[in-house]
Amino acid sequence: MSDIKSTFQNLGLFSNVSADFLNSVQNQAISKNEPKGHVIFLSGDEAKNFYLIRSGWVKLFRETLDGSQAIVDILTGGQIFGETAIFEDFAYPYSAEVAEDAEIVLVPLSLLKSEIENNNKVALDMLGAMAKYRKHQDQELEHRALQNAPQRIGCFLLRLAQSGDDQSVIHLPYDKMLVASRLGMQPETFSRALKKLKEKTGIAINGSTVQIQDIDELSAFSCSACSSMFPCKDLKAQKDT
Amino acid sequence: MSDIKSTFQNLGLFSNVSADFLNSVQNQAISKNEPKGHVIFLSGDEAKNFYLIRSGWVKLFRETLDGSQAIVDILTGGQIFGETAIFEDFAYPYSAEVAEDAEIVLVPLSLLKSEIENNNKVALDMLGAMAKYRKHQDQELEHRALQNAPQRIGCFLLRLAQSGDDQSVIHLPYDKMLVASRLGMQPETFSRALKKLKEKTGIAINGSTVQIQDIDELSAFSCSACSSMFPCKDLKAQKDT
Repeated sequence: MSDIKSTFQNLGLFSNVSADFLNSVQNQAISKNEPKGHVIFLSGDEAKNFYLIRSGWVKLFRETLDGSQAIVDILTGGQIFGETAIFEDFAYPYSAEVAEDAEIVLVPLSLLKSEIENNNKVALDMLGAMAKYRKHQDQELEHRALQNAPQRIGCFLLRLAQSGDDQSVIHLPYDKMLVASRLGMQPETFSRALKKLKEKTGIAINGSTVQIQDIDELSAFSCSACSSMFPCKDLKAQKDT
Repeated sequence: MSDIKSTFQNLGLFSNVSADFLNSVQNQAISKNEPKGHVIFLSGDEAKNFYLIRSGWVKLFRETLDGSQAIVDILTGGQIFGETAIFEDFAYPYSAEVAEDAEIVLVPLSLLKSEIENNNKVALDMLGAMAKYRKHQDQELEHRALQNAPQRIGCFLLRLAQSGDDQSVIHLPYDKMLVASRLGMQPETFSRALKKLKEKTGIAINGSTVQIQDIDELSAFSCSACSSMFPCKDLKAQKDT
């Protein structure tokens, strides 16, 4: 399992960890392949591990009293989750489920806790990562308040296009209904909004493939109700770290 | 200005700061009274200070390309803002404006930066505060996705009631239109939703005073589309810290 060590070393968040931490991770971490639908933990569960995704997609969510699901985030390769339980009396603040077949690495939370307590550089790196995430969440809230539904979908597609190599053809990373939940929309709202977006911007969707005819037209339509301009600066920052 | 030192000492976030930090704060901090409408800084401005609110209300916001405002947060006495600019290349990630006449304390950001770099306990306290804020934002996003507009207003009132001493009479802390923006609603949506909430739960509003007839009825109506139950646990945690 020697490659787990190098996987961690290559993550910005762990670039300043001690050799002791890396050796402990190598000895104690467990890598698992989990199928779509597998529940990793539930909100409120006792938190023993944090998780690194190597491939696939994991959704973080919370359930309301009347049984609806609110998506907290949907994460993919290179991202970690469950780590903030350190500051929540070791109880997970959300539930986690595999959204598309995933390889995940389980690492004892106690290792991370003692590393941030003893290595100030790692605590600072984690603060930096949290500040970035906070800004990302601020933007999400902004979008929910000010963008209409077709603009929110357009924004989602633009961000996917920006992350990929080809800006004219993109692939939805997970199923459409999950995209709807991720954007805080009911399925009916999502279908209506997608239809309107197609009319307004000339995008075409075939299964999970989206063809963008004119990215300037899509960004002119989607980004007018946003405080950033396309290409998104925050996304650039995420790619760099 | 000796009381600035004790003001900081009494904040959970600063309970582990060094004597040096407190002395520097006492020597370099500036306290100001600013009227409603005063712009403290704009998003992207070079960040020289972070701010502590002693009284009044401050709104954090961002402006979209088409001129709308998205409220990031509305803060009051005992809360700080501008501090995350440390992790944003010393540029403020949002704008700040006085929402109700406020007394604010300006502290050089460099003092906080060197304190978290040299005092691991303070870095950990700040991580804890960021994790709490992150959970709070997750919940906001959840509410925007799943609560309808009357439930969102009911939730806002319940949280105010829980923070105060009297749960049957509460006072809106700032004007109604700002409450609407805070909840991500257009003024028309807010008015319609408020009318519906009155019909459903028997609350009465007179100017900025809200009378809650039956808090159980209000929570049964508002909290069904939420993953927490009234009283809100996260709010309790905020009061304790």
